[in-house]
Amino acid sequence: MKFSIERAVLLKAVAQAQSVVERRNTIPILANVLIEAEGDNVLFRATDLDIEVVDRAPAKVERAGSTTVPAVLLNEIVRKLPDGALVGVTENAQTGRLTIEAGRSNFQLSTLPREDFPVMASSDYSANFSAPAPVLRRLFDKSKFAISTEETRYYLNGVYLHVADGEDGRVLRAVATDGHRLARIDADLPNEAATMPGVIVPRKTVNELRKLLDDDEAQIAVSVSETKIRFATPAITLTSKVIDGTFPDYSRVIPQSNPKRMEVDATEFARAVDRVATVSSERSRAVKLSLDEDRLVLSVNAPDSGAAEEELAVAYADEKLEIGFNAKYLQEIASQVDRENAVFLFNSSGDPTLMREGNDTTAVYVVMPMRV
Amino acid sequence: MKFSIERAVLLKAVAQAQSVVERRNTIPILANVLIEAEGDNVLFRATDLDIEVVDRAPAKVERAGSTTVPAVLLNEIVRKLPDGALVGVTENAQTGRLTIEAGRSNFQLSTLPREDFPVMASSDYSANFSAPAPVLRRLFDKSKFAISTEETRYYLNGVYLHVADGEDGRVLRAVATDGHRLARIDADLPNEAATMPGVIVPRKTVNELRKLLDDDEAQIAVSVSETKIRFATPAITLTSKVIDGTFPDYSRVIPQSNPKRMEVDATEFARAVDRVATVSSERSRAVKLSLDEDRLVLSVNAPDSGAAEEELAVAYADEKLEIGFNAKYLQEIASQVDRENAVFLFNSSGDPTLMREGNDTTAVYVVMPMRV
Repeated sequence: MKFSIERAVLLKAVAQAQSVVERRNTIPILANVLIEAEGDNVLFRATDLDIEVVDRAPAKVERAGSTTVPAVLLNEIVRKLPDGALVGVTENAQTGRLTIEAGRSNFQLSTLPREDFPVMASSDYSANFSAPAPVLRRLFDKSKFAISTEETRYYLNGVYLHVADGEDGRVLRAVATDGHRLARIDADLPNEAATMPGVIVPRKTVNELRKLLDDDEAQIAVSVSETKIRFATPAITLTSKVIDGTFPDYSRVIPQSNPKRMEVDATEFARAVDRVATVSSERSRAVKLSLDEDRLVLSVNAPDSGAAEEELAVAYADEKLEIGFNAKYLQEIASQVDRENAVFLFNSSGDPTLMREGNDTTAVYVVMPMRV
Repeated sequence: MKFSIERAVLLKAVAQAQSVVERRNTIPILANVLIEAEGDNVLFRATDLDIEVVDRAPAKVERAGSTTVPAVLLNEIVRKLPDGALVGVTENAQTGRLTIEAGRSNFQLSTLPREDFPVMASSDYSANFSAPAPVLRRLFDKSKFAISTEETRYYLNGVYLHVADGEDGRVLRAVATDGHRLARIDADLPNEAATMPGVIVPRKTVNELRKLLDDDEAQIAVSVSETKIRFATPAITLTSKVIDGTFPDYSRVIPQSNPKRMEVDATEFARAVDRVATVSSERSRAVKLSLDEDRLVLSVNAPDSGAAEEELAVAYADEKLEIGFNAKYLQEIASQVDRENAVFLFNSSGDPTLMREGNDTTAVYVVMPMRV
C-alpha cells in the first residue's frame, strides 16, 4: 500500500474514525484503525464492536493495499504535522511497519494484520430513508440530555427513535428519559420511513453521530433494522448496534391537561435558577417556585450555607402554587428553548410538569417535581 | 456593616482573594473571606496561613464593620450576577447573616465571627524596594517551570530570589531547579534591594503573584525579610511565608565552557521535538539529537509502537555529537525563548547542556542529558 494525501483531509478522516476507539480496551486490534487504499480513495475504519465508523478520503493511490495502525497515535502524529503538508503513507512489507512522511519528518508505525480487524457484519435493513441533517440534529440535540446514565436501566441509555402519531398525523419521534425528566421531539416523517422499526440509539452513537450532522445542507441516508441503525453521508458511514430492550410506554407520563400555565423568558429563567441554586452545595439542588398573579419567586434554602431568592415577571393568571424542582433539571429543559418563551403547564405540587416552546407541541418536556 | 459596590469591582476583588483559599481545609474559617468596610473602601482578605491576599476596592460605605463569609460561594454568586449591577451588601446582626442584593436577587450567607479570622502577623522587613511589573514577571515566568514538585526536597519547591554577581555587576536573580533542569534569570538590581536576604518563594505564591504582574505600567512594592516576602500594588497586597530551607549552591551546576555550539530556531525546534516524541508512550520520552555539520537529526525509537525521525537545518560547526534528552524538558526550555534563536552549548553526551537566547546571558537554562 502506498498513497499520498493532503494533511487536512487525512486529519479529518482519522480524527473522526479514532474518536470511536475506546481508550482502554483489552483487545489490541480495537485500538487500531484499518486503512484501505484503492482507486482514488482511502477508507479509514474504526470500531468498538458496537459502533463502526468508516471515513472515505480522496488520495493519490500508487499501490492499493490495507493494514491497521494505532488510531490515537496516528491522529496525534497527523495533528502535529504542519498545515498544508502533503503526507506520504507507505506500507513496508518487509519490516511490517507503516511509514508516514511529511517534509523532513518520518514516522514508522507498528502494524497489526488487516485480517484480524473485526469488520461489522452487514444487516438487512428494513427501512431506508433520507433526512436533512438539521432535522436529525434537532431530534437528537433536544432529547439527549434526558438519556439515563443508570446502567441497570440499560433500555433508557439511549434515544428511542420511532414512528408515532403526532397531533397532525404520523411523525418521526425521538424520546429520552431517566425517570426524572423526559424529552419528546417530533419531526415530519420522511418518505420511506413509515415502515421503520422503533430502535433505541445508544448514547455513544448519538454523540458520534453529531459530527455527521453539522452541515446544514447535508442529506443523511438512514437505514434501520431491528438490530442496527446506519447513518451515511458521501464521506462517512456510521453503523451502530441498537439497544436490545423495550423502551417503556412513555405516553402515560406526559400530562395531558395540566391547567396552570406560566409563560416566562427562558434565558432569564435559566439564569435566575442558576443564581439562586448557588447557595446550595448539595448535588441535587432543590429550587422552590412560588407562583402568584404574574409573579414568580424562585427560592433556595440551604440551612448550612444560607438562602437565596429572586423574583421574575411572568405571565400567570391561575391560583397560587408552590412547587419544587431539581435546579439542574430546570436549567437543562429551559436551555432547550431557542425561539420563543418557555411555557410551563402545572397541575399540583406533586404532579409532573410539562414544558414546551410557546404553543409548539413538536418539542415537549416533562419534569418531575421534588419536595421542598 | 453596609455598603454598595459595582459588580465588576466586587468580582475582581473577590476572585483574587478567593483563589488563595484552599478548596479542602479542615479549619472552617480558612474557607472564608474577611470583609472589612471603612471610609471609602472595602478590604477583602483571604489566607491559607502561608499566603495572605488583601484586595482593596472602592465602595460606598454606609455603615462601617466587618465579617467573614465563604469565599468560593461569594465569588460564585457575584460571578452570576448580571453585568453592570450595583450590589448591596448588608450585615444583619440579629440573624448573623450577610445579605447580598442586586436587582431582584437576594442572597443570605451564613457568617463566621471576624475575631476568629487569622490575620497574618506583620514582619520586620529588612529590605523594601520597588520594581516594574514586567521585570518581576520575567524573573518568575521564565524560571517557574523548573520548580521541583518533589515534596521531600522542599527547599526546591520554589524560586530562589536573591542578589548575585552577574557578568556586569550585581543583579536581582531568580533560580529554580528540580535536579534535572535549571533556570537562572537575572534582572537589573533595583535601588534599595542590595541588602535583601535571599528567599525561596513557594510555588503557590509565584502563581498567585502572577495576577499582580499583568499590568505593564504597574510598579510593585516588594518587601523582604528572612521569613516573609510581600508584593503590593495600590489595590492588592500579597504576603507570603518563604520556604524555611537553604537553596543549594547552583553555580557549580552551570557549565562554564561547553565548546560545541548549536543555534536553532526555537519554535521549529520545539515543534519538531513534539512531533518525534509522539511515537513514545512512556512518561519520560527520550529524544536523541544527532549533530553533524549544520544538520540536526531528532529521533525517537519506541520498540513497541514505532520510530520517528526529523531533520532540522541548524548552525553547527563542531565535531559530530549524539546526545539524548527528556523531550518535555527540551520543549519547556525551548518555549522560554521569545526573541532570538536558541543557542545550545554542549560538552559531551554525559555532561549538562546549557541553553540561552542568542548571546543574552541574563536568561540561562541547564538541562541534564539522558542515555538513549
